[in-house]
Amino acid sequence: MQTIKFSNASTDFYFDSSLKQLGKIVDKQNAIVITDQNIFNAHESRFKSFNTIVIPAGEEQKKQSTVDDIILKLIQNKADRKSVLVGVGGGVITDLTGYTASVYMRGIPFGFVPTTILGLVDASIGGKNGIDVGVYKNMVGIIRQPSFLLHDLTLLQSLPEKEWQNGFAEIIKHACIKDAAMFKQLEQYSLKDFKADKTLLAELIKRNALIKTKVVQKDEFEKGDRRLLNFGHTIGHAIETQYNLMHGEAVAIGMVFASEISHQLKGFKEQDRVKSLIEKYQLPTTIQFDAKKVFEVLAMDKKRVQKEMNFVLLDKVGKAVVHPIALKQLEKIINKL
Amino acid sequence: MQTIKFSNASTDFYFDSSLKQLGKIVDKQNAIVITDQNIFNAHESRFKSFNTIVIPAGEEQKKQSTVDDIILKLIQNKADRKSVLVGVGGGVITDLTGYTASVYMRGIPFGFVPTTILGLVDASIGGKNGIDVGVYKNMVGIIRQPSFLLHDLTLLQSLPEKEWQNGFAEIIKHACIKDAAMFKQLEQYSLKDFKADKTLLAELIKRNALIKTKVVQKDEFEKGDRRLLNFGHTIGHAIETQYNLMHGEAVAIGMVFASEISHQLKGFKEQDRVKSLIEKYQLPTTIQFDAKKVFEVLAMDKKRVQKEMNFVLLDKVGKAVVHPIALKQLEKIINKL
Repeated sequence: MQTIKFSNASTDFYFDSSLKQLGKIVDKQNAIVITDQNIFNAHESRFKSFNTIVIPAGEEQKKQSTVDDIILKLIQNKADRKSVLVGVGGGVITDLTGYTASVYMRGIPFGFVPTTILGLVDASIGGKNGIDVGVYKNMVGIIRQPSFLLHDLTLLQSLPEKEWQNGFAEIIKHACIKDAAMFKQLEQYSLKDFKADKTLLAELIKRNALIKTKVVQKDEFEKGDRRLLNFGHTIGHAIETQYNLMHGEAVAIGMVFASEISHQLKGFKEQDRVKSLIEKYQLPTTIQFDAKKVFEVLAMDKKRVQKEMNFVLLDKVGKAVVHPIALKQLEKIINKL
Repeated sequence: MQTIKFSNASTDFYFDSSLKQLGKIVDKQNAIVITDQNIFNAHESRFKSFNTIVIPAGEEQKKQSTVDDIILKLIQNKADRKSVLVGVGGGVITDLTGYTASVYMRGIPFGFVPTTILGLVDASIGGKNGIDVGVYKNMVGIIRQPSFLLHDLTLLQSLPEKEWQNGFAEIIKHACIKDAAMFKQLEQYSLKDFKADKTLLAELIKRNALIKTKVVQKDEFEKGDRRLLNFGHTIGHAIETQYNLMHGEAVAIGMVFASEISHQLKGFKEQDRVKSLIEKYQLPTTIQFDAKKVFEVLAMDKKRVQKEMNFVLLDKVGKAVVHPIALKQLEKIINKL
């Protein structure tokens, strides 16, 4: 176990651990597990001794009415301020769990057991807990750190191939913005290699979890370095819901576009290298989109400050910068993409 | 202006000020005022130069679906992280404003202009921003301090008589738990005196705002002294929604019952004095209630920790203590009230 301190809280990381340890981390009497129907069906026996709330699976559940449902179930379960919510699932479940725990009775403790690559390396880390409002991603939420994070890589057994690719989009993002050596490693190996070699995979996941953790630790409330994690996410979020893409697919396309904009505005030269790596991990690199509609959603992005967008660009592989772009200029660039 | 620091934030207090000052405190371009239909109708000209969201009036608006509506309007208004929400109204408006601002885009700044006695001396202070879930009061919420608090006592001109009484319940509460001298002052004067003498009223309001502020400052997250502010609120909350009482009426009755329990368990002797003062300010002192139903709601109170309730009792007027009562014992006491 490794304890990482944030500004107001600390998170205990249990890397390469097992769901069996959960009973030792939390008191089963007080714990309420939140998971989705797919995870529950795939690993039913592992939930037996826990009080569990099961919600339908799917990205579209990440909304207020699901939070409302969970709150009613917490009241029925007589959850109080000593209760601990444990989100076992992908990003949707960990976001819903963290957000609900942050507002139920004005805040009760929570922890996460991520069951997807995306969850393990990204969504579960950093304390951003949010829900979508219509097409607007994470429009509502709270920054609050989980008490603990437990990794059990055997839960990945039930993960569909698409979800593996989805998670690797964020791993490629980390390589682009912070870790040129890992970028090279990803070029050398393939998704198949990582799936076949448990040690290689465990190391990659830990490396990525720590990249994200370090960035968040330095800048929990996103005034500086944390904004770099949005690489690929500005256009990514704007196309994700409109074209019904998986988050990783949208981010992959977003990274290709952001690399192209980096080339145009910053003289970045490795845009083909980024594109090839994304292709290697079987992620999409482009999409036909309605520029007007995409720009409309994008203009409501949280990274907008009045008439400028704080866009994340690459100087080189492994080094990202925040670059403000006037909305009018951005509109022109997007029309030409 | 008086700046008061809390653990993570500070609040600027503008006592005995004017709504006209608002344009100097916030940038009108970024400000979005949230108010209710009654306040808006009574003071329409004062809102002219502000971007304003008007919601229906009434305690029953303090729920998630109203928050959902406000969020949609914020998106339509293209509110971003530079926006400031300003709640102009009673406790319902300030709670809704503070809660919505705390979760919109993971938190934007907010300030309050309370328009009721209850708001001025209590609801607007301390950073508790919550909504009700069915009969459960403040079941969902967040602790976050407003950036500023502006008092404009001319807004009280439109306040109905019932609301004056409602607010004095919290003033009497402050006297009971913290200020024996103010208790005496309240015995000497009457509601009519305070309504007739603006200076007397302004002093009383400032005194009460500072009592609450000091308690909160010492114990923002309610581990100790802040719990004393719940005097009269445990039974109060349990009867409030079930019997459709005003908050102050419910708290008044709750204080009479809590004084009686203080007598039974702590030998408190001034229960008749408390009751008389409540009567003097035209507040109810008792109600016929269904003990079983009331106990059911009460058992879900946030102050419950497993099988005990942290109940606030009086040692003497001006001195309150937190006293844990086993739920079983509390059930017996309530059955006999």
